[in-house]
Amino acid sequence: MIVIIGGGPAGRTAALHLALAGREVTLVEKGGIGGQCLHYGCMAVCALNDVARSLDSSRKLHHLGILDSAPKVHFPKLLQEMRLVQNKIESILDAETRAAGVDIRYGIEGRLEADAVYIGKESVKADAVIVATGSMPRIPNINGTGLSEVYHPHTLSSMTTLPGRLAIIGGGIMAVEFAYIFHQFGSEVHLIGRSDLLKNLDPKLRATAFKELEGIHIHEHCNINAINGDDRAESVSIGEKVPTEIPCDAVFLAAGLVPRSELLHGVDIGKMGQVIVNRRMQTSRKGVYACGDVTGSPCLTPVARREGVVAAENILGRDAVMDYDAIPQSLNLFSELAFWERDNPNGITFSVPGPAGPGTFWSVPTGTTGLARITVDPDSGNLNAVHTAAPAAGIIAAYTAFLSKCGVQVHDLDAFLEVHPMSDGIYSLLKYASLRLNDPDFSS
Amino acid sequence: MIVIIGGGPAGRTAALHLALAGREVTLVEKGGIGGQCLHYGCMAVCALNDVARSLDSSRKLHHLGILDSAPKVHFPKLLQEMRLVQNKIESILDAETRAAGVDIRYGIEGRLEADAVYIGKESVKADAVIVATGSMPRIPNINGTGLSEVYHPHTLSSMTTLPGRLAIIGGGIMAVEFAYIFHQFGSEVHLIGRSDLLKNLDPKLRATAFKELEGIHIHEHCNINAINGDDRAESVSIGEKVPTEIPCDAVFLAAGLVPRSELLHGVDIGKMGQVIVNRRMQTSRKGVYACGDVTGSPCLTPVARREGVVAAENILGRDAVMDYDAIPQSLNLFSELAFWERDNPNGITFSVPGPAGPGTFWSVPTGTTGLARITVDPDSGNLNAVHTAAPAAGIIAAYTAFLSKCGVQVHDLDAFLEVHPMSDGIYSLLKYASLRLNDPDFSS
Repeated sequence: MIVIIGGGPAGRTAALHLALAGREVTLVEKGGIGGQCLHYGCMAVCALNDVARSLDSSRKLHHLGILDSAPKVHFPKLLQEMRLVQNKIESILDAETRAAGVDIRYGIEGRLEADAVYIGKESVKADAVIVATGSMPRIPNINGTGLSEVYHPHTLSSMTTLPGRLAIIGGGIMAVEFAYIFHQFGSEVHLIGRSDLLKNLDPKLRATAFKELEGIHIHEHCNINAINGDDRAESVSIGEKVPTEIPCDAVFLAAGLVPRSELLHGVDIGKMGQVIVNRRMQTSRKGVYACGDVTGSPCLTPVARREGVVAAENILGRDAVMDYDAIPQSLNLFSELAFWERDNPNGITFSVPGPAGPGTFWSVPTGTTGLARITVDPDSGNLNAVHTAAPAAGIIAAYTAFLSKCGVQVHDLDAFLEVHPMSDGIYSLLKYASLRLNDPDFSS
Repeated sequence: MIVIIGGGPAGRTAALHLALAGREVTLVEKGGIGGQCLHYGCMAVCALNDVARSLDSSRKLHHLGILDSAPKVHFPKLLQEMRLVQNKIESILDAETRAAGVDIRYGIEGRLEADAVYIGKESVKADAVIVATGSMPRIPNINGTGLSEVYHPHTLSSMTTLPGRLAIIGGGIMAVEFAYIFHQFGSEVHLIGRSDLLKNLDPKLRATAFKELEGIHIHEHCNINAINGDDRAESVSIGEKVPTEIPCDAVFLAAGLVPRSELLHGVDIGKMGQVIVNRRMQTSRKGVYACGDVTGSPCLTPVARREGVVAAENILGRDAVMDYDAIPQSLNLFSELAFWERDNPNGITFSVPGPAGPGTFWSVPTGTTGLARITVDPDSGNLNAVHTAAPAAGIIAAYTAFLSKCGVQVHDLDAFLEVHPMSDGIYSLLKYASLRLNDPDFSS
């Protein structure tokens, strides 16, 4: 028997892979299947963002005089309907996983002791163990995080009314995605971070994000002192010498994720609480594998899933190694902003505004059709990086990253046929780069 | 000097390609640059569909109780704003083309006589000629097409009010796209065709389209007798023995396109009026090339552009051959429906509903998340066809067609990393196909 602890993307994918290969698999999931991805992360952001984009689109068209009005969101109803869809997806995942032959044990905790694996109180004999316990929201170490009206992604569903003024603590992708959502819903949003907002993003892509965050109050490089209030959050105090109070009706913590490793004993754990693994997803203990957020790898569902497959393949005796080169990532505002870089992302960079196409035609008047930006090795023609903002940019990023890793070079793109119009500016920029790199007069 | 007749996608792309290669190019365009694509076709449909989708989205969310209302379109204002954006794009294309060194002659007609090429009344000496005169709407051979309130894509901009009841004559992609648009705008739409609606579409994709056309009155296999009315169109008469009148306030003709070759003499012309070319885009007359819709090839902007490049390359003395294998196409309703097939599209077909992701989360309750459908050669693992309905399906189709032509096989997709969530079901279906084709117990 193989025991898998955690039914999120990493654990569930590993379970499916092993069960379909004929192995006996027990999956231990204390909550619902699907992990943070389905319940609090990706899918929740997707649900809320789909509504936010719809509102944004109506508002822009109303502003142009094309629509007679712009609707408003009924927030409690939205959360209620979102839960119904999540339940439906959960039941599909459950059925699919069982149908593959996986034995799912819900409602109990799996844990590792020094020399055994436990399902609840029962020590079980396992041929291999996969730890996929995921992560949980990082709670900043400041006073007031326990006050009423302080939320994080796991508790958002208990927010009963749309806050008039919302303070979001965090400066990464998740913080910015929620800021856009609540701003579109009509809240006055304050985005409060300790350093530069989206500090790791390519500068041009970051500038594109800032345009789409217009109207949100951005506070960067903040010393965040405390969340103040009697019973409920009433303000966030920032600043060193002269503290400033940012009044609010609710606070949302979006300050990153930390690995859930507190029940894992007998495997090496790193400083950030992550289970230490090699690229075969093997822990320090023979027969024990780990995958997904608990390993401290980028907290991304596709990475977790792939790590799950790699762990499973190694258990099946087929050598597989995880590859972290050119992982596509995205950030959803009105546009999707997406990007990837090869391990060596050097080269010549070409950049143009996004084209007019589905979802961007009405952004032409404001010049906000997005961005297409590529980096190409001038000698080999290898595509080394993509940064783009467009509808469905995540799809563009995923396919171009894959093309790059397949060894496709810009000159191969000459015969690429698109559909028209298409809001992707990357393929045409690649064609342009191909022409320019063939041009003896062209220098970087 | 090289003379190019027609500044649509084919002619303009050829002009840019030749001018950037240092050739002296004169581009003759009797209207505005950009061709039907910008002025009446792709971009107009895109503009109208972006508004239709926004309305559709609001209505669906309003129906779920998530939005408090659904807006209405102000149709004349929409047409007016659309024209402004088209003008802006036109001026960008004009500037880009001039900046490349192309001499553009607006407002006069280029034509071929038996042994010369004319720009207006002037016979000019040219080293090579490219004919890219495009196509124009086919006007069905029935009575009443000259009545007031009968429109086609070239005259749509003169429609001053949104028709309460609109009869659309046609059964192909363009007819269906306009039907969706006007239905979302609030017109009662009758779609009237001589054969099966979307008869060339894959049956599952066709069924997906039909779901999205709910509420539109579809009349297939019609004998279309006439458009009736005194001065203005009042009804469309259909049926053989017992004619039926379909009352309407306007008629829209979307019955395909015919090549514009009436001013082209001294080159071989086919039965459908198309200029006959080989795959190097050479006509029967030495030094005269043709590309785009006038050649009778699929009326698609990317095909026209590529044909323009092929013609230009051959003029530059570099052998280039047009390849019509696996051309991606799309159809925009609320979803985008997109597809391509290799010349030999045989194999095992795998099919699943589209996943929940950006743009489809709120389609989960109604089970309308789209479709992912692939055909794979079981021996080689070659991907031979894709049929998919999803937001931005055109992007998915374009990249997967390219991957297929690069020789990428399903087993190579195992390590594909997506972003999550992504409304593309194709990549995951390819991974599934890879597993199944490796499974000795699996048979088609």
